[in-house]
Amino acid sequence: MHPSFAPFVEPPYYVVIFTNQHAAPDDTDYHATGAEMEALAKTMPGYLGFESARGKDGFGFAISYWESEEAIKNWKRQADHLNAQRRGRSDWYEDYVVRVAKVERAYQMKRQTEATGDE
Amino acid sequence: MHPSFAPFVEPPYYVVIFTNQHAAPDDTDYHATGAEMEALAKTMPGYLGFESARGKDGFGFAISYWESEEAIKNWKRQADHLNAQRRGRSDWYEDYVVRVAKVERAYQMKRQTEATGDE
Repeated sequence: MHPSFAPFVEPPYYVVIFTNQHAAPDDTDYHATGAEMEALAKTMPGYLGFESARGKDGFGFAISYWESEEAIKNWKRQADHLNAQRRGRSDWYEDYVVRVAKVERAYQMKRQTEATGDE
Repeated sequence: MHPSFAPFVEPPYYVVIFTNQHAAPDDTDYHATGAEMEALAKTMPGYLGFESARGKDGFGFAISYWESEEAIKNWKRQADHLNAQRRGRSDWYEDYVVRVAKVERAYQMKRQTEATGDE
């Protein structure tokens, strides 16, 4: 599997879909904070994985996977993450939507093995 | 709200997160089929919206929103969509993961109004 993918985990678990339109895609500060937040998220209880992509137009997703809703709430309240959220609202994003959802089914296709959902 | 965003809908509803690594990002055939499938999805019962983004490295997401699991199953079985799925597996994607999840909470930030979740 390509390294951009989060590890495959059997449902059920939770996902936070952060859909956003970036105001300044080349902001160095933004990229540094993003990397810090990803490193910090990995240390949080219940963290399962992270994926992100952004197109040339600045529209993109940051998607994180969690064992439980409690783990998500805990991460949302984390102090450094609260600061990053504030910067996001004030400086980085034109618009965004956050969705919290419970993953009920999942399957995968890997080019090498054609396996589905049984990693 | 930027036009790349799906319409904001109050939960509960369902989401299909299609995470993929593209093998040939500049494939014209791929883009034409993607546009056709998006147009077709819009005609399906229970369709709520679609969003997508892909980075320069070919890693990206196609995310669709649906009223119910039944609507998702119906779309998965649609004949032209089945053909597109087959092409995706054989020609376009190196790896992919499909997750079906139930959206339980959602909120938004719009630059113009600072409104959250009450559009």
